[in-house]
Amino acid sequence: MVLGGKRDESLILPTNDSISATLDIDQLHAKTSVMISLDFKEDHIWLNGREQDIKNPRLQNCLKEIKKRSQLPGYMNDWKIHICSKNNFPTAAGLASSAAGYACLATALAKLYKVEGDISVIARSGSGSACRSIFGGFVRWHMGVDKNGADSIAKQIVPASHWPEMRILILVVTDEQKKIPSAIGMKRSMETSQFLQYRISHTVPERTNKMQQAIIEKDFKTFAELTMKDSNQMHAVCLDTYPPCVYMNNISNSIMNLIHSYNDAVNDVKVAYTFDAGTNATLYLLEKDVPTVMGVLNYFFPPVANVAIEYKRGLPVEEIKPAKDLLEKLKFEKQPPGQLKYIIYTKVGDGPKYLDNPQDHLLDGQGNPINFS
Amino acid sequence: MVLGGKRDESLILPTNDSISATLDIDQLHAKTSVMISLDFKEDHIWLNGREQDIKNPRLQNCLKEIKKRSQLPGYMNDWKIHICSKNNFPTAAGLASSAAGYACLATALAKLYKVEGDISVIARSGSGSACRSIFGGFVRWHMGVDKNGADSIAKQIVPASHWPEMRILILVVTDEQKKIPSAIGMKRSMETSQFLQYRISHTVPERTNKMQQAIIEKDFKTFAELTMKDSNQMHAVCLDTYPPCVYMNNISNSIMNLIHSYNDAVNDVKVAYTFDAGTNATLYLLEKDVPTVMGVLNYFFPPVANVAIEYKRGLPVEEIKPAKDLLEKLKFEKQPPGQLKYIIYTKVGDGPKYLDNPQDHLLDGQGNPINFS
Repeated sequence: MVLGGKRDESLILPTNDSISATLDIDQLHAKTSVMISLDFKEDHIWLNGREQDIKNPRLQNCLKEIKKRSQLPGYMNDWKIHICSKNNFPTAAGLASSAAGYACLATALAKLYKVEGDISVIARSGSGSACRSIFGGFVRWHMGVDKNGADSIAKQIVPASHWPEMRILILVVTDEQKKIPSAIGMKRSMETSQFLQYRISHTVPERTNKMQQAIIEKDFKTFAELTMKDSNQMHAVCLDTYPPCVYMNNISNSIMNLIHSYNDAVNDVKVAYTFDAGTNATLYLLEKDVPTVMGVLNYFFPPVANVAIEYKRGLPVEEIKPAKDLLEKLKFEKQPPGQLKYIIYTKVGDGPKYLDNPQDHLLDGQGNPINFS
Repeated sequence: MVLGGKRDESLILPTNDSISATLDIDQLHAKTSVMISLDFKEDHIWLNGREQDIKNPRLQNCLKEIKKRSQLPGYMNDWKIHICSKNNFPTAAGLASSAAGYACLATALAKLYKVEGDISVIARSGSGSACRSIFGGFVRWHMGVDKNGADSIAKQIVPASHWPEMRILILVVTDEQKKIPSAIGMKRSMETSQFLQYRISHTVPERTNKMQQAIIEKDFKTFAELTMKDSNQMHAVCLDTYPPCVYMNNISNSIMNLIHSYNDAVNDVKVAYTFDAGTNATLYLLEKDVPTVMGVLNYFFPPVANVAIEYKRGLPVEEIKPAKDLLEKLKFEKQPPGQLKYIIYTKVGDGPKYLDNPQDHLLDGQGNPINFS
């Protein structure tokens, strides 16, 4: 929820602390199989059914870090590795696919190489925000002060069970890959945005502490306001970057306006939005408000009629059609059908899970990716 | 070009200095007739053919200020006034119609009430930025330090003739009135944006001086980069406001991207964009580059075919069709027709002008608005 820049690009050390919620793997997940063998001729990686460049520096960082701490017999560390990963949601569309992917990879590698203890550093070396996603619940990434990043690690604030009423709606506006990769945008912001420096030194430290407190106290209103303000400020920094990075589009802005209208109409703060480096919105709200909000979303952002695509995904929900007086209070115009591709309903989850069932493996006995149709 | 907040709402005292260019009245103007008479029963004001509320506080401020300094015989100050104004461009669409309107009104009132000397304060009491528009060329509004605003006045940096090559293209995306009036947005930013405070104290003072220097030295590249960075930062502040104000839309963002692509393609900074509190873009460029840039705009933002609306307005220009190698370098997608309503081509002008010809009057001999079809 709190995004910033990097103080060290290659080590992926952040300029500030940050907090995120890890989403339930039942709805959204990355799944990874790793396998080493004396028989493998070369390292290989497949992502979503396609072979990727194994020389990717972030991936290599990850492998280097894990081997440093490997508890396997020395000779086995030289065995070649096959990695096969897939995620059940759009990649590089501002839905934190790299955080999920690298958290999953780090966890799988730790299991394989029998690495124990905190694996924040391993996950972080692949994708900064991945270090948070190795834990469930609400997680804080402490930026640390060590030059080599030894103390730049994630710690769980509370497990998902602490705030079981918390729910998440992901409004997918586009599942296309974003034009400016987050890492490049962030680097450009570090170099050119005057606001980013102010944000790092003034806004974020205070907000992160307030956010942690709100989570511990289950103070939804404070949580929601901080979430929205921080999302907006992050995008303000992107706009203050030169040349500017704009991730949100008209539909994103409409969603933002609808949420403010809704909160105004119910004279409370019932829903928060946050936008990562993309057009898609992530809404936070409490379970009791989901049916009404889902009804409002469906009313103002209707799906295209008679389309084969599944509009509501994830957890089941019986939406409530918005009451007339609510509709009158909502100063918002009904959007043309199809502005939202689909909505995923999910909750905060418990973090990475080992799958013991051989049927779940993505690699066959010979280390070849199993073809999923 | 440089926007900020207000340190005093009722006096309209700004939080920082600012600079603007006054556009040539041959292309874009407000036109105002004022008339007082013993025979008038009440004050009246008409704007663009419709009667407006004469009790508008900003208008009343303006009338109060002018009467304070009136050189007319005392009894004439009690005569009722009729004001009739119209502008030949969209009102309240982020094209500074209130600046033009109040600058014109202040100038007309000063003539009527025989007020001499600086009329910044009078214009400013109607609309802050109007105090700049009472002068031609490039103008700086000095924020001043006086509590009552006596030293918050505008001064010309250079007349239009100093930089006669400077040209302006206004890309009209929408001529509808904006949803959030600038004055309300600015007030909300003052109350909620952390970035605005930083902008006022750090960014703007330095940028305003640099901008003034660039204008004096006719350093287009510096002028252009500062213009773009400052426009982006102003909109970043709007986004950092809570609830956020978003004025630019997808088309505005596309224009921004096209300008950056164009500058990249020609490996120089030939064009600058700036967005006021609306979707419409104002481009600054040198006269020699207008034919090529006009060709690029027409290519990527084609008008709707066979539409009665005049697409190119203002100064005449023979556009040059973009060369193949330029098109190849421009990493930009051709937009569907009609994204831009029309383009106004203009230049920096000399400021308000008195019209002596009775045919120009907007009020007839009895003080009634003349009906223009």
